[in-house]
Amino acid sequence: MAIKPLTVWLTPSGPNPWKVVLILDELGVPYEIESFAFDHVKDKPYTDICPNGRVPAIVDPNTNLTLWESGAIIQYLEEVYDTELKLTYESLNESHLLNQYLHFHYGQEKGADVLSVRFNVLHPEKLPSIIERHNGQVRRVLGCTFADLAFMPWNTRLDFVLMTKPREDPLAPYPNVQAWHQRMVERPVWKRAMAVRDKLMDDQGLMPNGMPKGDQQYPRV
Amino acid sequence: MAIKPLTVWLTPSGPNPWKVVLILDELGVPYEIESFAFDHVKDKPYTDICPNGRVPAIVDPNTNLTLWESGAIIQYLEEVYDTELKLTYESLNESHLLNQYLHFHYGQEKGADVLSVRFNVLHPEKLPSIIERHNGQVRRVLGCTFADLAFMPWNTRLDFVLMTKPREDPLAPYPNVQAWHQRMVERPVWKRAMAVRDKLMDDQGLMPNGMPKGDQQYPRV
Repeated sequence: MAIKPLTVWLTPSGPNPWKVVLILDELGVPYEIESFAFDHVKDKPYTDICPNGRVPAIVDPNTNLTLWESGAIIQYLEEVYDTELKLTYESLNESHLLNQYLHFHYGQEKGADVLSVRFNVLHPEKLPSIIERHNGQVRRVLGCTFADLAFMPWNTRLDFVLMTKPREDPLAPYPNVQAWHQRMVERPVWKRAMAVRDKLMDDQGLMPNGMPKGDQQYPRV
Repeated sequence: MAIKPLTVWLTPSGPNPWKVVLILDELGVPYEIESFAFDHVKDKPYTDICPNGRVPAIVDPNTNLTLWESGAIIQYLEEVYDTELKLTYESLNESHLLNQYLHFHYGQEKGADVLSVRFNVLHPEKLPSIIERHNGQVRRVLGCTFADLAFMPWNTRLDFVLMTKPREDPLAPYPNVQAWHQRMVERPVWKRAMAVRDKLMDDQGLMPNGMPKGDQQYPRV
């Protein structure tokens, strides 16, 4: 039976919704995007979908489930739609070690990025060095897992987060992380998602980096 | 076949390890605690268990798995040891709505608490009001789920986080949350875990609130 398209509610400037888009695309699950301005994240109709007023949220007409929190959505999509194990592992231990890295992303990277964006207190070497140290701890037999994808939308903002100089690659000191990141950005799903994101940003008068067009404060795009 | 005891590595002053202890206790899974001082969280032997140097971590001799990140540990324990569905739901939608609240805890409450402890910028009404608004959104047919338990170790520090006055209950303005919290602290597992925590704190010369004995800066215990 054909899968009915899921709806993904998002504000294009938020990193977290794109994790969900990437995973839907990798899994070949049909979906439609409901894009709206960040200014309305705490307003109806969105708060009828997600009373917490954070993006993303999904509505799945196949199961009649409305779900928010990107980490929970990723785990739901994996359970229901990754029956061919495209982005995960079969064995108990490997699947939980993989899940550990999803939580590592939420607890460490995303947490550190959010702190840094808000307060600029991140110790810049902390995050990539830990990834570097553990790279390969989970065997990447598949080349790409749901945890890899979950890292991407924040990874590509590290220059902004760490306030590196123009054209300086924040991952340069970490060759394994840099190589992993390069493999990920070359995936067709990432290119497709970023093309959609740029268009949805443009629809809202935003540059690809989420800043208003004409704003010269953040010239790097 | 009898379950061999799992080992839980923890520093008693950290809230996150106690989530794991609570869930093991509720599930009736045998475990042993390896308690060590927070000063050594980035040192061997602990970094051989968890190279990220954060607590908790578990070692499960039944599956030969070493796992860190408390959220990943909780999900692992649920999959492997909650075969009677003591702390979760059977249906697909309900189990994922429950998981949504685990992620809500990590993304919102724990995040807000960590931010607040570090920077004291929390809008105090934000967190309880959202819980209040959604209380009952997931039917609590079981009275207690793994997500309820995950909230507890941070909930009981809200007075410290929000810097409320002595004997002022930070949950008083939120009667549903307060009633839920009261049901949770009355559970035998919570009382047992806190008794163990107090003893392990004492072993390290710490008061039950994690501050050094004799430190008068935080007199509320």
